[in-house]
Amino acid sequence: MNYPRTLQWLGDAAGGKLVIIDQTRLPGELAYLELDRPEQLIDAIQRLAVRGAPAIGVAGAYGCVLALRAGQGEAGLDGLAQARPTAVNLRWAVERVRKEAGGDPVRALAAAQRIHAEDVSACQAIGRHGAKLIQPGMGVHTHCNAGALATSGMGTALAPMYVAHGNGVKFRVFADETRPLLQGARLTAWELDQAGIDVTVIGDDMAAVVLREKKTQLVITGADRIARNGDAANKVGTYALALAARVHGAPFYIAAPRSTFDAAARSGADIPIEERKESELRQWQGALLTPLGAKVFNPAFDVTPAELIAGYITEDGILSAAELAGWLG
Amino acid sequence: MNYPRTLQWLGDAAGGKLVIIDQTRLPGELAYLELDRPEQLIDAIQRLAVRGAPAIGVAGAYGCVLALRAGQGEAGLDGLAQARPTAVNLRWAVERVRKEAGGDPVRALAAAQRIHAEDVSACQAIGRHGAKLIQPGMGVHTHCNAGALATSGMGTALAPMYVAHGNGVKFRVFADETRPLLQGARLTAWELDQAGIDVTVIGDDMAAVVLREKKTQLVITGADRIARNGDAANKVGTYALALAARVHGAPFYIAAPRSTFDAAARSGADIPIEERKESELRQWQGALLTPLGAKVFNPAFDVTPAELIAGYITEDGILSAAELAGWLG
Repeated sequence: MNYPRTLQWLGDAAGGKLVIIDQTRLPGELAYLELDRPEQLIDAIQRLAVRGAPAIGVAGAYGCVLALRAGQGEAGLDGLAQARPTAVNLRWAVERVRKEAGGDPVRALAAAQRIHAEDVSACQAIGRHGAKLIQPGMGVHTHCNAGALATSGMGTALAPMYVAHGNGVKFRVFADETRPLLQGARLTAWELDQAGIDVTVIGDDMAAVVLREKKTQLVITGADRIARNGDAANKVGTYALALAARVHGAPFYIAAPRSTFDAAARSGADIPIEERKESELRQWQGALLTPLGAKVFNPAFDVTPAELIAGYITEDGILSAAELAGWLG
Repeated sequence: MNYPRTLQWLGDAAGGKLVIIDQTRLPGELAYLELDRPEQLIDAIQRLAVRGAPAIGVAGAYGCVLALRAGQGEAGLDGLAQARPTAVNLRWAVERVRKEAGGDPVRALAAAQRIHAEDVSACQAIGRHGAKLIQPGMGVHTHCNAGALATSGMGTALAPMYVAHGNGVKFRVFADETRPLLQGARLTAWELDQAGIDVTVIGDDMAAVVLREKKTQLVITGADRIARNGDAANKVGTYALALAARVHGAPFYIAAPRSTFDAAARSGADIPIEERKESELRQWQGALLTPLGAKVFNPAFDVTPAELIAGYITEDGILSAAELAGWLG
């Protein structure tokens, strides 16, 4: 399957480094960052050079190697776990490495490599299960980027598209551009186009029209954190898309691995929503979009309630909201 | 009232010119264009240096003076009428000047000045009627720009806000930025901020969240063409906003003068929707947002069905969809 390799560890625990695609440079340029200090990784996570809940989970796991070998101990791991608040995978991965490594960088690297391999394999399973939803001739709608660039494998929401395409199914994808950072236009369109999948970019405010005109009949997005009852936090705009999908009869699915589910969150009300800096909306490439006297409100995520979600495409199959509690244990 | 003067005719029919604010330069710069040839006006309309259904109606009326004095006759008027397809005001204004001027630039100028004065007065009446909807402490939501910059007066959707503000009512406005051309961020935020009205810009994909959180309890937008049954074509994204407003119990109003109503269109299906060039979504300030291999779909407008519209704020009062047919005659 032809999808980008978002992150790789090169070398051993003592001298190795984490190499990631710098996603802030796409689609104009495919550039890589080589990270060998934990502060560099935290910076890369915060400015979204690496983003997507599963990808920052795996990156955070490798970051533990960097923090431990730099002698930062527990405090270093805490700093990594808190680099972004909404995605649960980051905290989950750091806590798992903390437990499995016992402070040793070599054991941390082995733990991170297990997490990485599990992510690759979860993506493949999500792709296999979700591909059954994609019928020939269909239009599939997605928001933001939950593709290979958001994971260390073939993605979550885009994995079913890669698998269906690999199976020779003809379909087309509509990608919301996803303001303010345009992950749909810059990242989803780029990786699907690289893979030879037919993709069309639209403004976020055009999604309801595309659904009404039946250009898309199925919606799949990723998630950053999913509560026990099925409420799902994902990139802001997902909720509006789910509303429009419901009105126009398109089933709306969330694709996410087990590590994105937060069994401790009873509902969406328990999920913290990151507000990002206003410059993301106020300017672009140095040009002022919004006058300085006007305010800006820039929540990075929203919560889509479980009742709008037809199912959860996981590595263990497609589950309903009612099945989640049993699956999560 | 402190609002921008979007267009003015300076001088007589023989030597005068149309002076407009170049809206492509806002909010960074308040610059004016001086137009004395009809081709210059058509270009300004097509690249949205002047935009908004009522404003391009008035501009088109003055354009008739330019076309007739340049000896272009009927063909010149036809060219003006067709500069943009969705806004009905443009065609309406040109046809009215054609009828009243009989080919004479001096009579055309008098006709254009009557249309201009009527627009100013319709905006004031819309403001007076609509201001009753704005309660102290309220959040008012709008999309795109239907303000002074979209008319030759104080606007349509924003007119009730100017009047309420003038009456000392305290409220705040949330403006969707309105991709791809950002009329909400660049124009609505600019003119409301100039007037001292509290305005916050959000991404279009955040509107449903703002409504769900009850930051806004009332929605007012303009329209480019309204059918006899009340279906309203307006800037793309209006439909999604109306859907979210319905789900969250915020009444959704359209503010528009009589000239925006097309009595010949029975429903939204009779309204042509302009598709604009893909570069509007594909690039920004020369930077590539969407890779060249991906397609782009860029409809400029959408149709909001009458059943989602609480009322029409017109110069004759606030009408329901059921009252429109009688009012239109």
